[in-house]
Parts: sequence; structure tokens; C-alpha cells
Amino acid sequence: MDLEKTIEELTNLISNRKIKDLREFLENINSADFPSILENVDEDKIIMIYRLLSKGKAAEVFVELDPEDQEKLINCLTDTEIKNVMNEIYMDDAVDLIEEMPSNVVKRILTNTKSENRKIINELLKYTDDTAGSLMTTEFIDLKENMTVETAFEFIRRKALKKETVYNCYVLSIDRKLLGIVDIKDLLAAERNQLIKDIMDSNVVKVNTLEDQEEVTKMFDKYDCVALPVVDQEDRLVGIITIDDAIDVIQEETLEDFEKMAAITPAEDTYFKTSVFKHAKNRIVWLLVLMLSAMLTGAVIENYEAAISTLPLLVAFIPMIMDTGGNCGSQSSTLVIRGLAMDEISTKDILKVMWKEFRVSLLVGTVLAFANGVRIMIQYQDLKIAVVVGLTLVCTVAMAKLLGCILPILAKKLKLDPAIMAAPLITTIVDTLSVLAFFNIATIMFQL
Amino acid sequence: MDLEKTIEELTNLISNRKIKDLREFLENINSADFPSILENVDEDKIIMIYRLLSKGKAAEVFVELDPEDQEKLINCLTDTEIKNVMNEIYMDDAVDLIEEMPSNVVKRILTNTKSENRKIINELLKYTDDTAGSLMTTEFIDLKENMTVETAFEFIRRKALKKETVYNCYVLSIDRKLLGIVDIKDLLAAERNQLIKDIMDSNVVKVNTLEDQEEVTKMFDKYDCVALPVVDQEDRLVGIITIDDAIDVIQEETLEDFEKMAAITPAEDTYFKTSVFKHAKNRIVWLLVLMLSAMLTGAVIENYEAAISTLPLLVAFIPMIMDTGGNCGSQSSTLVIRGLAMDEISTKDILKVMWKEFRVSLLVGTVLAFANGVRIMIQYQDLKIAVVVGLTLVCTVAMAKLLGCILPILAKKLKLDPAIMAAPLITTIVDTLSVLAFFNIATIMFQL
Repeated sequence: MDLEKTIEELTNLISNRKIKDLREFLENINSADFPSILENVDEDKIIMIYRLLSKGKAAEVFVELDPEDQEKLINCLTDTEIKNVMNEIYMDDAVDLIEEMPSNVVKRILTNTKSENRKIINELLKYTDDTAGSLMTTEFIDLKENMTVETAFEFIRRKALKKETVYNCYVLSIDRKLLGIVDIKDLLAAERNQLIKDIMDSNVVKVNTLEDQEEVTKMFDKYDCVALPVVDQEDRLVGIITIDDAIDVIQEETLEDFEKMAAITPAEDTYFKTSVFKHAKNRIVWLLVLMLSAMLTGAVIENYEAAISTLPLLVAFIPMIMDTGGNCGSQSSTLVIRGLAMDEISTKDILKVMWKEFRVSLLVGTVLAFANGVRIMIQYQDLKIAVVVGLTLVCTVAMAKLLGCILPILAKKLKLDPAIMAAPLITTIVDTLSVLAFFNIATIMFQL
Repeated sequence: MDLEKTIEELTNLISNRKIKDLREFLENINSADFPSILENVDEDKIIMIYRLLSKGKAAEVFVELDPEDQEKLINCLTDTEIKNVMNEIYMDDAVDLIEEMPSNVVKRILTNTKSENRKIINELLKYTDDTAGSLMTTEFIDLKENMTVETAFEFIRRKALKKETVYNCYVLSIDRKLLGIVDIKDLLAAERNQLIKDIMDSNVVKVNTLEDQEEVTKMFDKYDCVALPVVDQEDRLVGIITIDDAIDVIQEETLEDFEKMAAITPAEDTYFKTSVFKHAKNRIVWLLVLMLSAMLTGAVIENYEAAISTLPLLVAFIPMIMDTGGNCGSQSSTLVIRGLAMDEISTKDILKVMWKEFRVSLLVGTVLAFANGVRIMIQYQDLKIAVVVGLTLVCTVAMAKLLGCILPILAKKLKLDPAIMAAPLITTIVDTLSVLAFFNIATIMFQL
């Protein structure tokens, strides 16, 4: 879609009051494109545009808006209009909406929701955030095993438009236990008089309502499905999670990992929506912790004041050693943290990872030491300094790479989030150790 | 699936030679679970197990294996067996397979592929990596606009099992231009005598074969679709991308971003599959670059040797100032890099972002300076040092946060990958500037 052209045409149609054309034009715009369009339209036109949409489209567009705009819109809508939206949207979207709105708006929404739906919404609201239960919707196609394909088609035809997905249909027993899944593809390919139980796949991949949402995304990734059935503690089917919601979780969890690994408390909103004060709050805790630990390195240096007065040149190498250690550590920790997150590395692999990182560190450390040695010989013609710095680099790289792999795995073993053992913390720890190594090696070599 | 139990039962069935039970047991295991099962089975049993699978299942399992195991398996299979696999797998998987295999295996695969498929494979191989064309498959359901719903059903019934997805069907003109999409849900809900053109959605979201794969994933995310049609330069439909492949791309690109932001050249393989030498190679380039730039900070310190001899205590604050600057910079750059990647921040927003980061930095800097001041007053009772360090911290945080947002946006403007302006590089630059600020402020305050 060409945003500028669309808005131009829209503005034209509005100012010329061509309502019929306008209605048709709006109906042809993809719902997902509405937020960026409405952002570029005068506020007083928004409600007018919204009222021209068909019932189904209006609900679709409503779901795409962000909470702020949803709230503004609700405040302009009549009770009947709210009723229409609440009748059309899927239960998982209704729950998301209610979780985001202030209580007075929630009250208005709920009084305009059918009592059966209100009951479902209340049930869904009980699931804690980040669980499969909180992601699921209750609208799915449920078949019986003794239906024929023909009957199933008739059943689906009547229900299809009210359900979030028909791609997979679920075969339930009388007590709502999940017996099997029928992919619509197999239903289409089957003979009309075949029984559902003969074409269903009874080997079902499913999750429990309490399962962590990260596990849910891994199952989507592994099993290449478009929807995942969710069962309760008694193994009864209570809902399904559709793949679009799984993708949103993947994006959300990735951003959270990035933030944690950069020593930021994950924010709930986007960059611009988060206030300056909130940004500062999300960043200050880790900065204070890391600043205090960095003072340790300072204390180590203070300890070697005598050595520094004798050989002030030593100080000039501290930044390079600290930075290299930090970078090496963050390389290893990033790879290990991602490996753990993607289940490519498990905590059992700790020795295997350490052995790999150790060999990598020897290779990398040697190259860095050599490059530095050449530089020092050219600049200072001092072999002893070159040797001291070189040895320190090899030690630093080895320590950094080992800590970079051990700490995240250890965190995982202790049921902590490995992402906290990322670059910032590793860097601070390696700094102290590398400065300590540097002065110790220097003291011995120069007999300071 | 309980892996241990499955393997135990499998081993039992094999040793008791219950071939019929074994066949049924295998057929009920999800194809995606086979790689982890086969990993735990003796090598000589693998080919036996594989030969017990039905044709369709065998192809499904084959696709799930990683390239190494696929190669081993192919070397054990007869030409007829390879033919079966190549007849059953989807074209995008066939292309992936051929790209991964060594040339002698490729030759064997292609001689056992139907000539029509060989032609398609060769066409698909021409698309450069990371484009929509390289992700697509050519198996989709194409309908004509004058078909009735009834005819369409008949058509789909005959083709369904051979197509990767039937969830969306594509309506083509005679010259294969894409006229519209029919979601299977709408097809199911329609009356049997309706015409396809009356139920199709002619407002189609599609991509060009040359589109970057990252854009493709963004479209899946935005439009919540399960497949995306791919058209060539003449707007003819040439293939579709299914959502499972889009998710793989999302995972792959995320890992790449993590690696780049930790100063690692992205690897093609998983952590364990990458050799020690390759790991070292992927990490050394940036380490060398960053080490050389860190020397600048050393040079700055060298310049102030006189100041250090007069007041050696100054050195003890260097690590804390460097680390804090690095951490502040990496917080900002991470948020901005992610914001750019998710299209939440655009390069036009540079002033808005700078203003936000500047205000955040004042808040954060003041808190850090104050905390440090208290510490210094307790430890050294030296107000002057407290003021020098405090001022330096405020300057450092401001510089770090501004550089952390400016450099990634600038990189994007210059069509470079913003991810290279991540923590490691920002840290090195901020180090030099902060040390410079520190000694300048100290020189003025102490008249050194």
C-alpha cells in the first residue's frame, strides 16, 4: 500500500462527500493498514471514517489500533456500536482489550458484551500473563468422531465465519477431551461419506493452559503448525492459540532478551511511548549495580599505586585490556545465552562448551597478544612490556570466554534468566580479574 | 512427547522384531520429533527405521533432518527411494536440500527427480539468498475467477494433498496475474453456486521475488497471514511463502542481530556445529579493530602522566567511569537498534530520539553522580574529587546516550546495518571521550 496516495485519495473523497465511494474505498483497505492511515487524518474525521466501515471491518480495524486510540474511539462510540464490536471480535482480542483499558472503560465494555461472552472473558482473565492460557482464544471448530465428512462440512459452513481459524478442526469426545485433529486439507481431500475418526490425526501436539508462552512459541517453531490446542488440567480442550499470536510473543520475548542483555529492565511500551522518567527508571538499577562493582576494579588499581608510580606507562594499557576482556566475554555470553534460549545448548553441555571456548580463547588470545606485541615494539621498543601485556591478554581472553559461557549456564541451572549474565555484568567481573592479572604479571616481570 | 519413553519402546519393538507394531508406532510419531529420536538410536538401525515409514512420512521425516544426516541417509538409499522422497517433498525443501549437499550427492538427487520438478528447482535456485524468491514454494492452489464454489472444491479435492497449503487459494487470470485470494474459510462459508470472483478478496497483500526476506517477515507480522503470494517483475504469481518458513527467517535474523551486536561475524551453523577455528575467525576481526581503537584511550591517559603522578588516586576512578559510559551507551544503542529494526523508530526521528535520550541521561547521570559523591565522601572525605568524578559522570552519561542513539541512526541513513553501532563500538568511543573529559575536568579543578 502506498500510504501517501491512500491518504490523498481518502482526503479527496471526504472533502467531496462521496460517501458511497468512500465506503467502498475504505472496505478495500487492509485492516492492518488503518492505524498508520488514521494517524495521518484529522482527529475529528476518525470517528466519521470508522462509522462508514461495515460491522466486520469495524471490529477488525478496532483490534489493530493501539490501546490509546482504542480508548479514544470507545469514548466516541455509542453503546450499540460497542456492542457490535464486542460481538465481532475474537475472545483473545477482547481479553487483551480489557486488560489495557482503564476501569471505567472496562465497565462500559462489559455492560455491552453478551453475558455468555462475558463469562468466557472472565474465565480467560484468570490465566496469568505469559502462560498459554492467556494467549488462547475459545473460538475453534469442534467436530465429533462419528460425523461424516459431509456433515462436518455442513457444520463448518455454519460456524466458519464466527471462528478465528478453520484451518485445523478439533475432534472432541463427549466430555470434551481432545481425540484428534483434522487439517482442513485432509477434510477437503477425503470422500464425503468417510467418518471423521478415520481421517483425523490422533497423535496430537497440544499444550497445557499453564505452559510458559516461550515454550509455546518453540512448539510452533518445531511442529510447523498454524494453531495449537490448549487443554486444562483434566485434559479437556479449552482453547487454541493461533500462529499470529505466537509470532507476537516471539517478537516480544526477543525484545525483552535484547533489553535484559543490555542491562535494561524490559519496558512494556515502545520506545516513544515510554516516558523519559520510566526510561531512566528502567536503566538506573543495573547502572548503579554495575557502577558499584566497577569500583572493585578501582580498588585493585589503588592497591598497586606504588607500581604505577614506578612505571606510569602501565596505566595506558588498562583501557585496552579492560575493553578486550569485556568484548571477548560478551561474545561468548551472547552465543551461549542465545544457544540456551534456542535449546541448542543445554546445561548438561557445560564442559563441552567450556572446552570449546577455551580453545577459541587460546587462538584469539594469541593473535591479539601478537598484534599488540608488534605495536608495542614499534612504539616503545620494550620487549618486557610487550611480554607482560601479551601474557595478560591471553589470560584475560581465557577468563572472559570461560566466564562468558559458565555464568549463563549456571544462571539457567539456578532457574535464573541467563540473559542477566550478559555483556554488562561479565564485563565488570572480567575487568577486575584482568586488571588483577595485569598488575600481578607486571609485578613479577619488573620486580616492582 | 516423552523422548526417553519413546526410545525405550522403540528399542523394545526393534529387538522383538515386531515389524507391524513398529510400523504403526513410527507412523504415530510426529515427523518433527524424529531428529531427536534418531540421534539416540544406533546408526545401523536408522536406515531400517527409515525404510519402515510410509512414503509420505519418509519424505516428511527426511525434511526434518539436518543436512549432515540427510547426506548420510541419501548415501544409504536406493535410487527408487530417493525418487520417492523427491516426488513427495515440496519444492522449497528440495531447493534447500540441494543447496546444502555436496555436488556428487546433488547429481544423484537430480537424476532421480522428475524433469518437470528439476526445471522448477533450477528456476528457484537462481534467486539470491535472503530474497522472497529464495523462500517460496511453487505448490499452491490456483483457481479461476469464473469457477463456482462447487467446482473449486472439486478442483481442490484433487490437488490438496500435493500442495503445501490449501488455507489460502489464489485466483489467477489467463496470463497468471494474481486477481485475488480466497481464504478457505470464506470458501467453506459460501454457497455452492457462488462464483469465485464474488467471494475472493481482490485487495491482495503480495511481495516481489526480489524483496528482502526481512521485509517478508514484517509483512507476515503486520497482516497476520499464513501464506504470502510472491509475484515476479511482470506481476505474475510464481510462488507462495508459508508462515513456517517466515518464522525460521525471524529466528535466523534475530540470532544474526544478537551476534552482530556482540561484535561477532554471524555464523551459518549452530554453536556446536561451528568449528573452533571458525569461531575464532568470526570473533577476531572485531576484537582487533576494537583493540586498536581502545589504544586511543591509552594514548589519552599517557598524555596526562604528569597529572597522574601528582594525583595517583585519579587512576582508580578510570574503570568505573569507562564501564558506566559503556553501559549507558549500550543501553541506548540497543533500544535504538531494536526500534529501527522493528520500524518503531525511523531515521527522521533522530532529533526526537536525541532529545529523549538527553533528558534520560540528565536524570540517570545525576543519580549516578550523587551515589558516587556519597561513596567518595565516606571513603576519602574529598569534596573536590567527588565533584570532579560527579561532573565527569554526568558528561559521560550524556555523551554515551547521545552517541548511542546518533550512531545507529546515522548508520541506517548511510545504508549500513545499525547493529554494528552496538555496545562494543560505542563503548570504545565513549571510553576515549570519557577519559578525556575526566582528565580535563580534573586538571581544571585541581590546577594540575
